[in-house]
Formats: sequence, structure tokens, C-alpha cells
Amino acid sequence: MTATKGDTRARLLETALGLFTVHGVEGTSLQMIADALGVTKAAVYYHFKTKDEITEAVALPALRELTAILDHAATITRPGPRADYVIDGFVDLVVRNRVLVAVVCSDPGLARVVDRIVYAEQSVLVRMPEMLVGPDADEAATVAANVALVGVAMGGNTPALAYMDDETLRRHLADAMRRLLGRPRRRD
Amino acid sequence: MTATKGDTRARLLETALGLFTVHGVEGTSLQMIADALGVTKAAVYYHFKTKDEITEAVALPALRELTAILDHAATITRPGPRADYVIDGFVDLVVRNRVLVAVVCSDPGLARVVDRIVYAEQSVLVRMPEMLVGPDADEAATVAANVALVGVAMGGNTPALAYMDDETLRRHLADAMRRLLGRPRRRD
Repeated sequence: MTATKGDTRARLLETALGLFTVHGVEGTSLQMIADALGVTKAAVYYHFKTKDEITEAVALPALRELTAILDHAATITRPGPRADYVIDGFVDLVVRNRVLVAVVCSDPGLARVVDRIVYAEQSVLVRMPEMLVGPDADEAATVAANVALVGVAMGGNTPALAYMDDETLRRHLADAMRRLLGRPRRRD
Repeated sequence: MTATKGDTRARLLETALGLFTVHGVEGTSLQMIADALGVTKAAVYYHFKTKDEITEAVALPALRELTAILDHAATITRPGPRADYVIDGFVDLVVRNRVLVAVVCSDPGLARVVDRIVYAEQSVLVRMPEMLVGPDADEAATVAANVALVGVAMGGNTPALAYMDDETLRRHLADAMRRLLGRPRRRD
């Protein structure tokens, strides 16, 4: 069976993320990625010219998904259902990308790359709280939105919760976020 | 007027924290601290032998305060009042140490030192959620406690909230944390 280019690229990104969790972005070299994949450095170069390109490619799919969630949320006019949509989408994204989010939260190398992409994309950071509590939210709601977003992204990835399976974590994070934002509890 | 040793030490720590926020712990040298203070490197050495000692001294007072809060909380037997006490104490500590907390959250150099102290002090990280939701909390409460603690510490320090004065931020963070943990709202 011959691996296709797409296979190699996907494996490369997965391997890079794994190395980032252990050594940090700064501590990971293209050579280390090549070694871990069992390929030559030239094979890595075939896909990516720099580590920054790899770092960006590791983070980009999740950021694109987040942008898509916010774009769709912007089409929902009623604030309550719009908040519910962002809560469910954001929590699901965080839980499916637990490893990536943990690295972004603890690694300035990856955080820097994410920031650069994020700011290029019309500041997801500004749009997220707005989609949750509206553009004219009062200070209490603004604080609640920021606590909820950071709490879910980073708090959901604390080692203390690592034992929890995705579905359980997803349900409890969404409940916590809803309670914090004053949304009624979902019936399952 | 002659500065006392205590004055110099306090100014040194304040200066170091300021430099950490700009250059990170790794990017700050003893020489830079001396230059910013307008003293010789020997004067810095008089107080601290290594940058690690300075980093620890910068973080230690807040960590000792946190330990004191948890120690007192442990003497409160009723879960509700105990949670209220931890919420108020933790929020106040975070808000009074906004600059420090922001550096700890974004700088692996400082985070590493804090971790070392924290683990030496019977794991504040384990005791904090326990004091909020009890040692036998179910999974939902455990998730809520971790979202609340990380959300307040890190979310309370997002640039989006930097404009808020301490008193306003303190009130809204405490309200958010109480709501998240199912505590009744305070009457002011």
C-alpha cells in the first residue's frame, strides 16, 4: 500500500502536534519531525518550508471551524438561540481539539502563530464574546462571556479533567457555560 | 533620604515583574533589572543570587495568600459559606495581582517557577476545586469548579477587560463565579 501525499501531510501534522506537546514549538525541529515520522528532512521540506508553516497548518483547521461557527451565528438574529449555537459549537470544537488547545494555552510559540492567524481573520477574539452576549452587552455580561470562553478553553483542558471522556466533558462544559451566561439548562 | 534595604528589594521585585511583562522571564536578565533600577548588578546580587530567586520572590506573596485563604476555608464546615469565602478571596487576589497573574498565564518561565512552589505547598491546584465544591463533588461540579477558577484567573486578565477598574471587575468576576457554582447572588 502506498501512502498518498495527503496521508503524509496529515501524519506530519499529527506528529508535529505530538512533538509540540512534549518539547514545545520552540523545542521542536524539522529534523525531529522527520525522525519521528521515519522520513528524511527533504520529505518534510516537500510539504512545508519552515516550522512556522507547520505550526500554522496544525492550528488552522480548528481556527477555520471557529470562524465558520461565528459566521453562521451571525445569521441567527435571536440572541438566545445564537448564544446556544455558539456555546455548543465552541465546546464541541474545544473538546475535539483537546491536545491542540492545551498546547496553544501553554506554549507561547503556538499562541503567537494562532494570534497572527486570529488577528488576520477579523479578530475572532472580539467576535466570540459579541456572538455570546451581543455587541451592546453590559459589563457584567462581558465579564461572564470572557470567563466562559477562557474557562472552557483552558479550564476544560486542565490535567484534573484529562481522565474524562469527550462526551461527558462536552456535556458538563456546555452546562457550565450556559449557567454562566444565564441560558436555561438543556433537556437531554 | 536614604532608601532602606526593604525599599530596594520591593522596588527590585516590582521592576522585575514589569520587565517580565514586556520581555518574558527568559528574556529578562539580572543586568536588565539593574539597569532599569539604575543600580549596579552587584546591588541586585546583594538581594538575589539568581533570576530564579527573583522569579520565586515575585510570585511567592500571592501564593502564600492563596494558601492562607485555603487554610482558613478548611476550617469552615458548611459547604456554601466555605465556597463563598474561597470565591471572594480568590477573586480579590486575582484582581489585586492582575499583572502577575497575566504573566503567569502567558509566560512558561514564570509558570514553571509557580508550579514548583505550588506543588511544594501540598498542591494548591488540588485543594482549590475541593474547597469550592467539596472532596466528593460529582463530575458536573468538578468541571464547573475548574472552569470557574481558570476562567476567573485567565479570563479576568484578557486584554478585553483591561479597561475595567478593580472594583467593577471584582464584583462581576465574583458574580460570574457564584453563578457558575450555583451559589445565590450576593445582596450588596
